[in-house]
Amino acid sequence: MLHETKFQSFTVAADPRQGPPRLAALRARLKAQGLEGFIVPRADEFQGEYVPPRSERLSWLTGFTGSAGACVALLDKAAVFADGRYTVQVREQVDQTAFMIEDLIANPPPVWIAKHLPKGAKFGFDPWIHTETGYQALKAAVAEAGGELVAVESNPLDEAWDDQPAAPLGAITPHELKFSGEEAAAKRARIGADVMKSGADAALISMPESIAWLLNVRGADVPHTPFPLSYATLDKDGHVTWFVDRRKFTPGLEAWIGNAVTVREIADIGPHLDRMGAEKKRVLADPATGAFWMFERLRKAGAKIVSASDPVALPKACKNEVELQGFRNAHERDGVAIAKFLHWLEQEAPGGGVDEIHACRKLEAFREELGWLKDLSFDTISGSGPNAALPHYRVNTHSNRKLKLNEIFLVDTGGQYQDGTTDITRTVIVGEPSQEMRDRFTRVLKGHIQLALARFPDGTTGAHLDVLARQALWDGGFDFDHGTGHGVGSYLSVHEGPQNISKKLINVPLKPGMVCSNEPGYYKAGHYGIRTENLIAVKKPKVVPGGERPMMTFETLTLAPIDRKLTDVSMLTSRERAWLNEYHAEVVRRIAPHLKGHVREWLEAACAPQ
Amino acid sequence: MLHETKFQSFTVAADPRQGPPRLAALRARLKAQGLEGFIVPRADEFQGEYVPPRSERLSWLTGFTGSAGACVALLDKAAVFADGRYTVQVREQVDQTAFMIEDLIANPPPVWIAKHLPKGAKFGFDPWIHTETGYQALKAAVAEAGGELVAVESNPLDEAWDDQPAAPLGAITPHELKFSGEEAAAKRARIGADVMKSGADAALISMPESIAWLLNVRGADVPHTPFPLSYATLDKDGHVTWFVDRRKFTPGLEAWIGNAVTVREIADIGPHLDRMGAEKKRVLADPATGAFWMFERLRKAGAKIVSASDPVALPKACKNEVELQGFRNAHERDGVAIAKFLHWLEQEAPGGGVDEIHACRKLEAFREELGWLKDLSFDTISGSGPNAALPHYRVNTHSNRKLKLNEIFLVDTGGQYQDGTTDITRTVIVGEPSQEMRDRFTRVLKGHIQLALARFPDGTTGAHLDVLARQALWDGGFDFDHGTGHGVGSYLSVHEGPQNISKKLINVPLKPGMVCSNEPGYYKAGHYGIRTENLIAVKKPKVVPGGERPMMTFETLTLAPIDRKLTDVSMLTSRERAWLNEYHAEVVRRIAPHLKGHVREWLEAACAPQ
Repeated sequence: MLHETKFQSFTVAADPRQGPPRLAALRARLKAQGLEGFIVPRADEFQGEYVPPRSERLSWLTGFTGSAGACVALLDKAAVFADGRYTVQVREQVDQTAFMIEDLIANPPPVWIAKHLPKGAKFGFDPWIHTETGYQALKAAVAEAGGELVAVESNPLDEAWDDQPAAPLGAITPHELKFSGEEAAAKRARIGADVMKSGADAALISMPESIAWLLNVRGADVPHTPFPLSYATLDKDGHVTWFVDRRKFTPGLEAWIGNAVTVREIADIGPHLDRMGAEKKRVLADPATGAFWMFERLRKAGAKIVSASDPVALPKACKNEVELQGFRNAHERDGVAIAKFLHWLEQEAPGGGVDEIHACRKLEAFREELGWLKDLSFDTISGSGPNAALPHYRVNTHSNRKLKLNEIFLVDTGGQYQDGTTDITRTVIVGEPSQEMRDRFTRVLKGHIQLALARFPDGTTGAHLDVLARQALWDGGFDFDHGTGHGVGSYLSVHEGPQNISKKLINVPLKPGMVCSNEPGYYKAGHYGIRTENLIAVKKPKVVPGGERPMMTFETLTLAPIDRKLTDVSMLTSRERAWLNEYHAEVVRRIAPHLKGHVREWLEAACAPQ
Repeated sequence: MLHETKFQSFTVAADPRQGPPRLAALRARLKAQGLEGFIVPRADEFQGEYVPPRSERLSWLTGFTGSAGACVALLDKAAVFADGRYTVQVREQVDQTAFMIEDLIANPPPVWIAKHLPKGAKFGFDPWIHTETGYQALKAAVAEAGGELVAVESNPLDEAWDDQPAAPLGAITPHELKFSGEEAAAKRARIGADVMKSGADAALISMPESIAWLLNVRGADVPHTPFPLSYATLDKDGHVTWFVDRRKFTPGLEAWIGNAVTVREIADIGPHLDRMGAEKKRVLADPATGAFWMFERLRKAGAKIVSASDPVALPKACKNEVELQGFRNAHERDGVAIAKFLHWLEQEAPGGGVDEIHACRKLEAFREELGWLKDLSFDTISGSGPNAALPHYRVNTHSNRKLKLNEIFLVDTGGQYQDGTTDITRTVIVGEPSQEMRDRFTRVLKGHIQLALARFPDGTTGAHLDVLARQALWDGGFDFDHGTGHGVGSYLSVHEGPQNISKKLINVPLKPGMVCSNEPGYYKAGHYGIRTENLIAVKKPKVVPGGERPMMTFETLTLAPIDRKLTDVSMLTSRERAWLNEYHAEVVRRIAPHLKGHVREWLEAACAPQ
């Protein structure tokens, strides 16, 4: 059996036995540098969700391949930190004779360091891969232990990692105006003006997706997110200095980015920051995403740092009409593949011939055959029965499970198309559901619909609306332990800020053009899980007939049937039911014309009024 | 016509002509102190909502009697700052040849100072009446203007105010265990332990209501809030040093507070802070409520300040069973008075014989005749027709208006009883409502009911639930510009923190025992206003039958009919309608037994199922 598709690997994780010798090699390097401890985060120097192979330091050292976590190595003990989603996985992947396993949330690295670091010890960290904010927490922890925090000149893990891969050289291509909807020059000018308004002379842009959006370029350095790893500074007049490996440029890219963007090697950023300091520039930088190293260099050079959020994040989140139309087109295309997949699943799964990996392969194939797929937007979550109860489950050859009769199957999946990024979750029953499953599914659906139906004034944040997606669950004594919605980029990261629909009190009002997921869920550990996810876009405020104040609403972008067998229509209000029927009618209008024969008939039946 | 009741004054405000000579007197004192400007806030040195007459500096100087505001006096110009609720009033009360009128929110004093203070000018402030947080904003503003901020030794306004009243000497009495439900010694011990947990040796308690709760005492220094003005420090072992004028003590009070409370004069707090500093104590203090003066004194004396919220605020907000039973009893009593009042209103108002002041007097009389009323918990808001559209309207002899046929009358009112504080708003139609009024009233009611029906897990804040009270309004294109709910003290301030149900993202989870108002509204400027307010208490988390996670709910404390004529039952969901009928049945069960004859019949009819 093949363990990879074009865009997803199902290979089981590294051998735990590699951990101890690698830890020993790291400790030797620590001693050589006079250090008694070192912290290895999951992050790379760009703080993105995905990192290239050369930056998979945590998994190289410990075997743990989760998407969040850390390791703290002292000379006599070491700990791997993972959160609740990885409780089982971390124990399978990590040698527990060499590493203690700790809870990343309840007992995070700073708490552990404060407790275990010997007094007077020098504790190292790589200043490129910790943010300014992260540094402050480390500093306090090491101080509490009576130790000394040292920014290493050379990463001791990299010294120990003999065959560390080279930095990626993914091709950088133009992101054309028909996809971006706004010339890069116009973006640079207006964000530059924002930087000036914030009282700064220039901004340090350290998030690769911000740079990709600003310059209308895309890249291929990490899985699932099409940006080039790079840094930039943006002057208040709109001029950009871009620190990037020029070998990644495809022909014509220099002309595409134009004269107002100066290209420099990554290594030139240090001297560039020095110059800004020497000129006493006021530099806007985001302590939550910018590396400590950059802040320190700016401070030492004499720059005045204006601490503020990445100035690109909000404009990037508010999609223009061209981007929104791209999202619609991408979702129509993606909806065709999803319809074919769900039809196939209904035909094949009850016979017992489908497993979770098989489902991923088939879904990717349906997407591929449309000819537009550039990548998945993340590794598909494909979980049957108890595996569906793990919200962040990633199937591998060990965990792979057959879809069984009368069990739930949950698929959370997305595609990267040049005109838009998709992210959809559908939960279906193979065979017949229990009444309990229908009750829980319908509570989740009620929450999904209530959020989709929301009308709200300017100033409303996702934290205010989150309860709408939970109320039917709370009423029954249930809840789910993840956010209701995250921002989604336009052929960029499937998870982007600054907005969020969740219990977290993040003070970022929802603005027209923002695209978010709407994905309430329910998880019964060891049994089954449910999630229904569509992407939604914030529409411009509109006067409500008979009303006084303009209100925003959501446009639902995702187009795919919601399982009839799992829906208990009697639990829906008349308004919720009307939404469901209208939604399904829209799915037929937009998707059916692209289908033929049995699949088309299947879709029409799946979307018939209830 | 009398312009006062026992607890409320309807006298029109001070003569604007007094402003200019008083401003001149203040400027003479400023010059004598070498100052070119001075700020006069509404606050006193205890930062409460109500201040004693000697601290009504803002109204003495400017004539403006609003409950929030400020004046900044420079040598050649001066400005009075008021918010949107006082737009009309401030112009009536203030001489605009002497004072500019500025918007407190859009153009607050720091912005104005930064713009108008001459470069190099010394700008004075009274360090007793500005918080540490407020000081930081002042400092930045004065620095931006290129001036120098000076903490005055002697308040120049007090120097100019010849007949400034003396500090109040309201009697301090025990707040008995049958009302408080917890011995002061137990409170001191547990809050002391919290102080220790926060890493401090002692806490500075500067909010008088915190001290009243902590020591189980009540006072009579300011209107409507029964606390003694005083300061205290709480050591981690539970020992309290109380800075208070001993002349306020009623016989036996020393014995009541016991040996573990050391009493000192207010003036002794300075030397006490010096001692704490000399002992290198770590002192917890709340920068949002503690005077700048205290912070500065502690810093200069060598204390280490632990900046944190007042440690009494959260425990005080979580009422115990005795306090909750007191709330229930107080609300039953208050409900009897409200029922008599609403019955009287229905009899008298349609004939044109009732005005807004008359209504206040009658309501107070109904409360008084029950024999338990200690005070109103705030000046009654009594507004008819367009006056009801002002959410914070206070009737005076100028604004007083007759209740007219087919107009709305809104009354927002509360009583201070020893066992509990009440706060209720009812909106009634005199005669017959328009269909528009019924639509808006029912939208407000739907919001009120949705919040009352909420089930929610631990960790939920008022910011999360706020949307429930607004959704029916938002759906129609309406909203209201105030919070949905504030905390309420137990025979203490009618507005207390730290929780809040509003759009503000305040990260304070609702906890069992917290009492809040539930008061959505709708205001049509120049026409009418609507608000329906009950107090609600957070109940302990309980397992929902068939559910998995315990959920909290609200108990509604307030007992009074909601106007049938204004309610469009066809707009309610079956669940909302069931709540309304159950609520009215409970009002009859609890209130009718205390009524006789016509009033009882009236209540039963007003509460009949719909």
